[in-house]
Amino acid sequence: MAKTLNVGMIGYGFMGRAHSNAYRMVTNFFDVPREPVLKVACGLVEEEAKAFAKQWGYESHCTDWRQVIESDDIDVVDICVPNNVHAEIAIAAAEAGKMILCEKPLALDVAQARTMVEAVEKAGVANMASFCYRRVPAVTLAKTLIDEGLLGRIFHYRSVFLQDWTISADVPQGGMATWRLDVKAAGSGVTGDLLAHCIDTAMWHNGPITRVNAMTETFIKERTHAETGKVEPVGIDDACTFFCRFENGSLGNFESTRYARGHKSLFTVEINGEHASIRWNLHDLQRLEWFDHRDEGRLRGWRSIHVTDHGGGHPYMDHWWVPGLAIGYAEAFVHQVADFLTAVDKGEPCSPTFREGLETQKVCEAVLESAKTGTWVDVPED
Amino acid sequence: MAKTLNVGMIGYGFMGRAHSNAYRMVTNFFDVPREPVLKVACGLVEEEAKAFAKQWGYESHCTDWRQVIESDDIDVVDICVPNNVHAEIAIAAAEAGKMILCEKPLALDVAQARTMVEAVEKAGVANMASFCYRRVPAVTLAKTLIDEGLLGRIFHYRSVFLQDWTISADVPQGGMATWRLDVKAAGSGVTGDLLAHCIDTAMWHNGPITRVNAMTETFIKERTHAETGKVEPVGIDDACTFFCRFENGSLGNFESTRYARGHKSLFTVEINGEHASIRWNLHDLQRLEWFDHRDEGRLRGWRSIHVTDHGGGHPYMDHWWVPGLAIGYAEAFVHQVADFLTAVDKGEPCSPTFREGLETQKVCEAVLESAKTGTWVDVPED
Amino acid sequence: MAKTLNVGMIGYGFMGRAHSNAYRMVTNFFDVPREPVLKVACGLVEEEAKAFAKQWGYESHCTDWRQVIESDDIDVVDICVPNNVHAEIAIAAAEAGKMILCEKPLALDVAQARTMVEAVEKAGVANMASFCYRRVPAVTLAKTLIDEGLLGRIFHYRSVFLQDWTISADVPQGGMATWRLDVKAAGSGVTGDLLAHCIDTAMWHNGPITRVNAMTETFIKERTHAETGKVEPVGIDDACTFFCRFENGSLGNFESTRYARGHKSLFTVEINGEHASIRWNLHDLQRLEWFDHRDEGRLRGWRSIHVTDHGGGHPYMDHWWVPGLAIGYAEAFVHQVADFLTAVDKGEPCSPTFREGLETQKVCEAVLESAKTGTWVDVPED
Amino acid sequence: MAKTLNVGMIGYGFMGRAHSNAYRMVTNFFDVPREPVLKVACGLVEEEAKAFAKQWGYESHCTDWRQVIESDDIDVVDICVPNNVHAEIAIAAAEAGKMILCEKPLALDVAQARTMVEAVEKAGVANMASFCYRRVPAVTLAKTLIDEGLLGRIFHYRSVFLQDWTISADVPQGGMATWRLDVKAAGSGVTGDLLAHCIDTAMWHNGPITRVNAMTETFIKERTHAETGKVEPVGIDDACTFFCRFENGSLGNFESTRYARGHKSLFTVEINGEHASIRWNLHDLQRLEWFDHRDEGRLRGWRSIHVTDHGGGHPYMDHWWVPGLAIGYAEAFVHQVADFLTAVDKGEPCSPTFREGLETQKVCEAVLESAKTGTWVDVPED
Repeated sequence: MAKTLNVGMIGYGFMGRAHSNAYRMVTNFFDVPREPVLKVACGLVEEEAKAFAKQWGYESHCTDWRQVIESDDIDVVDICVPNNVHAEIAIAAAEAGKMILCEKPLALDVAQARTMVEAVEKAGVANMASFCYRRVPAVTLAKTLIDEGLLGRIFHYRSVFLQDWTISADVPQGGMATWRLDVKAAGSGVTGDLLAHCIDTAMWHNGPITRVNAMTETFIKERTHAETGKVEPVGIDDACTFFCRFENGSLGNFESTRYARGHKSLFTVEINGEHASIRWNLHDLQRLEWFDHRDEGRLRGWRSIHVTDHGGGHPYMDHWWVPGLAIGYAEAFVHQVADFLTAVDKGEPCSPTFREGLETQKVCEAVLESAKTGTWVDVPED
Repeated sequence: MAKTLNVGMIGYGFMGRAHSNAYRMVTNFFDVPREPVLKVACGLVEEEAKAFAKQWGYESHCTDWRQVIESDDIDVVDICVPNNVHAEIAIAAAEAGKMILCEKPLALDVAQARTMVEAVEKAGVANMASFCYRRVPAVTLAKTLIDEGLLGRIFHYRSVFLQDWTISADVPQGGMATWRLDVKAAGSGVTGDLLAHCIDTAMWHNGPITRVNAMTETFIKERTHAETGKVEPVGIDDACTFFCRFENGSLGNFESTRYARGHKSLFTVEINGEHASIRWNLHDLQRLEWFDHRDEGRLRGWRSIHVTDHGGGHPYMDHWWVPGLAIGYAEAFVHQVADFLTAVDKGEPCSPTFREGLETQKVCEAVLESAKTGTWVDVPED
Repeated sequence: MAKTLNVGMIGYGFMGRAHSNAYRMVTNFFDVPREPVLKVACGLVEEEAKAFAKQWGYESHCTDWRQVIESDDIDVVDICVPNNVHAEIAIAAAEAGKMILCEKPLALDVAQARTMVEAVEKAGVANMASFCYRRVPAVTLAKTLIDEGLLGRIFHYRSVFLQDWTISADVPQGGMATWRLDVKAAGSGVTGDLLAHCIDTAMWHNGPITRVNAMTETFIKERTHAETGKVEPVGIDDACTFFCRFENGSLGNFESTRYARGHKSLFTVEINGEHASIRWNLHDLQRLEWFDHRDEGRLRGWRSIHVTDHGGGHPYMDHWWVPGLAIGYAEAFVHQVADFLTAVDKGEPCSPTFREGLETQKVCEAVLESAKTGTWVDVPED
Repeated sequence: MAKTLNVGMIGYGFMGRAHSNAYRMVTNFFDVPREPVLKVACGLVEEEAKAFAKQWGYESHCTDWRQVIESDDIDVVDICVPNNVHAEIAIAAAEAGKMILCEKPLALDVAQARTMVEAVEKAGVANMASFCYRRVPAVTLAKTLIDEGLLGRIFHYRSVFLQDWTISADVPQGGMATWRLDVKAAGSGVTGDLLAHCIDTAMWHNGPITRVNAMTETFIKERTHAETGKVEPVGIDDACTFFCRFENGSLGNFESTRYARGHKSLFTVEINGEHASIRWNLHDLQRLEWFDHRDEGRLRGWRSIHVTDHGGGHPYMDHWWVPGLAIGYAEAFVHQVADFLTAVDKGEPCSPTFREGLETQKVCEAVLESAKTGTWVDVPED
């Protein structure tokens, strides 16, 4: 823990908190080669940036992100602002030689994402897109089982992300709390916000998606803008369903919506292989379900694995408590930071890189295009 | 129970057993206006037809279905043979003035199904397509809740039917046990066999489906024919996914496969409405899950309703045991027969009629066409 | 199916229906060596006995059980009346050389039960106490796994039977519908009615119980008698908890109540062994939960086995449907009758015999005595 | 956050980590009136104490707990050492005028616990026993629902704490990792370690326990001592079951064991009231199950409440993430510290105080005595 890594945080919303917490917790639970130092927190409103910096122990605060990037004192720029500002900040940071951790989705569209990838690769700086769910231990364990070939040939990959927070017509669009409903700030609706997670995890687990066929819907056509007070058309997709082909021959079925009454943040994954199947959901994130056809016939059944057993080899869990005692959402970010610090120290890329984030962006864009045209759309290889 | 209803059963396979059992049980548990009398069981192989008739208490047996239809002694013809023979038998039975109960899917294709509808309507005979799952009490309860408007506007309908029995390349096609894999006997694969159930229930719950967009796959391209021993191309769909629009503006997402390791007969339904949501699955058929947003905030949660409480008003359950004691798969057929006998006695149609079976057939055909063309296909209105 | 077995049913209540249904169904699903013939149904009220006989296809009816016993035409007497009449009927039936199937608990007390055992053993007639849950396939499977030694040394056996139907003070005691609350008819409350099931299953699974220590409670002290209309003290136990020692060194924990709001008929079993554990509950009777410590560490988890897979070797399931399609409560009685008919034909005892029923009665009586004295009570060996 | 609270931590094991983490996180998520400052970490082995202090950011370390107590710089002494040392440290700390947070169980026995209560009350210092599970949001919500009378009269309270980590005879006793198996360090086995949690929560939820009747067992009679290497008799209880009476007339049933294969840390609670029932378990700590008999009959069912909805009023959850995103085990300690800091600032007691810890100790001691004598034992009122 000799060396430090100075962090400049841009954004003080929900994600700013999650990332800051991870930087603070990581050294208590992981023996990381670099110790994060919370240098500066940057956000638009001075008062709020100041309060945030105080709350989380940042040494200073500012309101102009360029100041962060220009500072010699900053090693890594952490981008936790709405999607429409990612590219500009990331490119500037890369040019300034900073490492970058950027919230997902990488950008508003593929074109932007490409410029970001080019910028970081040209600058040769460490870069990572924050798809946090990869590092929920159960999701990580799933990846290991697949990679070891325990499932055999994969036939099906199924994933949904269901929420219900925008059912009321009274929810506004735009502004700090509801920018995700404003197409200008978010780029898209559930596709970029939620399906991006499903897609990132799916391609990590199951390889490239080659073709998609999608349907979208906007159930509530107009909403008041939180800042202007004007009723404006809603430009985002409230719901999106698509099926697809993976390069390995398996079929995908994906769906996301913010109109699934009763589901708050229900990200689910199911993978059906020749020999075994896997299920997981974010509401019970500490569990992985496993079905193994190789079990004796009369004893075959879905196992509910409580992924808290370090002795059993559950990823990351040797750093926490004892078997049976669960970790939550926040710890996935701690794992992300731990892996990032380790990779940075070794000079290795930390997955998912911006380039992997671009791959997800391509699928999202193909999905949205397919929904418009009503036909299959190929995901471009490059 | 003064009047009788003489039954001629055609087919002695899995469905022949399920229907026969229902006829035998119904008068013990329901006060039906007509008592079924098991007159004759008909099947191709004399020895087997004889054994079947003995096992189930049929007065006689035969091997030619025309004999059943020509008999003056038969009131209702029950068709439990492979799909490719439904139309011929049903049309002949209608012309002979018999009532008809026909296993699903109604026919091989829409054209056939239409001729069957025309035949029964012209003859004015009672007719019913056997979509048994409508009469699982939890599924019936769901229908009631939707019809009472408790869900409010419907946004999403989601349904899958997952199995895993054909994963091995050693499973043959054709013959008595595996005719469902032979496109000539079955017409299609999972679409007609499994999705037909999903679609029937969905349109019963949520109204007409207007457009579909589908993908199918045949994972194992060749299989040995059980009778000829020859390796032949597989003509059925092993898996089928589609999304769709309902007339009421809601979105549908459907999937079926026989390659979902770990699922034996997992038919699921989920409906998301403005105020409430419903979930059900066939593996735990005695339960209905219900989420009601009108519950007090801190106490909102998915309720797992054990649908065995006659005092609570659970459909059909006043005829069985006491709360907490479940019924199984077989009882859905008893309910179907009880409703059929009651409708017949009143001279009323018993849903799903052949005409409703035709509507499901139209969706199935649109799905298969869409999978071929890769585009949206409208479900024809007539 | 050449030979018949003439049945005389005494009692037309809930159990009379369950048993009658089993006799009717058994030959359709099992190749039993004797075919039950429903000869006579006997009950106190002529009109009701008549209606019952008609509903279930008994050839005749009567109101005096002695008539049944004296009839040369009857092979087996099936006793489905309140507990206080079991002994008299059973002893008379034994003396008349009839086979006997008797509902549980065997008797009001150990003394009565002993005379019944003596009677049937002296007469050398086939006899069985109807503890139906042993033949729920999941419970039967559990027995097999234990007997094969898959659990290793047993440490704990845990079982509850929870209901909530008597919470209201308005429920009467006595009469046809609520005789279970009348100590004169029932002998005891939850101990004889519900714990008897837990105890029978437990000793079948895990061997003799040697000592018990119990607590009982009667929450509602007075209830109106359904027949007399008088308010009378309640003599039964509303709730009973006990812990115990098994002969094999394991510890037992048992509880039953009719005041567990939200549970209708929640019979549960859990067994913890050195290598593996088992769980089951009656509300989801088609599932068995299995945990095996010998599984690879990271993949250990409770398996939810859907006990419907005949190919997998699930007991009795080769007689029903296909994997994934559940049977319910009623089928346990069909299995019981099938086993009884087979044993009778071979001249072998069919477990649980009256003698085994006596063992359960001994534990029940020790439990009630312990609750009175507040100390450990040994279960008498003989 | 103007004022600070200087913390002296005694013990650097599992609990030392959990408490330290809570002190570090609390100011990020809660607006507490006092800011904890990690002053000194104390433990027996110099090297380990030093490493621990570094890992968690303590300003210094030491090996003699008296040094902590004598320091003017320390406001609160946090006792995270084995049970046999609690009393001595706590009493000295009280006499030195320090606030005290002490891990559970309070002491080895009632006599010790009494002296601790006397010491803190005489000194008038803030004191709290760390029964962390009270502050799992679902458990706290249960308390609120009970206190509001939503359950009506309580009939039953049921609680178990099941583990399986000591099944192997190779696990040693004594030493840093396994002091819980050494009766000299732990005082008792599962009774003090696990049942103490069940009892504390139960009395918090449901009021005083007045009488108990218990059974204990030590399955493995001898174990090697981790430090001496000698095989010694095992003095602790491996398993303990007891039933009891609560002052409010309800019945309790409790069980704990470390021989329940398949359960890692399965603390469960179930409460059955006249109108409603509650269930919770530690393996799915983010969920509370709720059954309300006042729901419409056909829609009654156990609700699975995901206790993550601040808008819905779930305790503590306004400080964390968004609905659907769970917290874990660690956060219960953050809540405990937040409440402690708030109470301390107001000069109010923070429940559970040492006096409440003493009440739990009394029940534990009565349980152990009852297990020895085989009879009911009254819990002393004072």
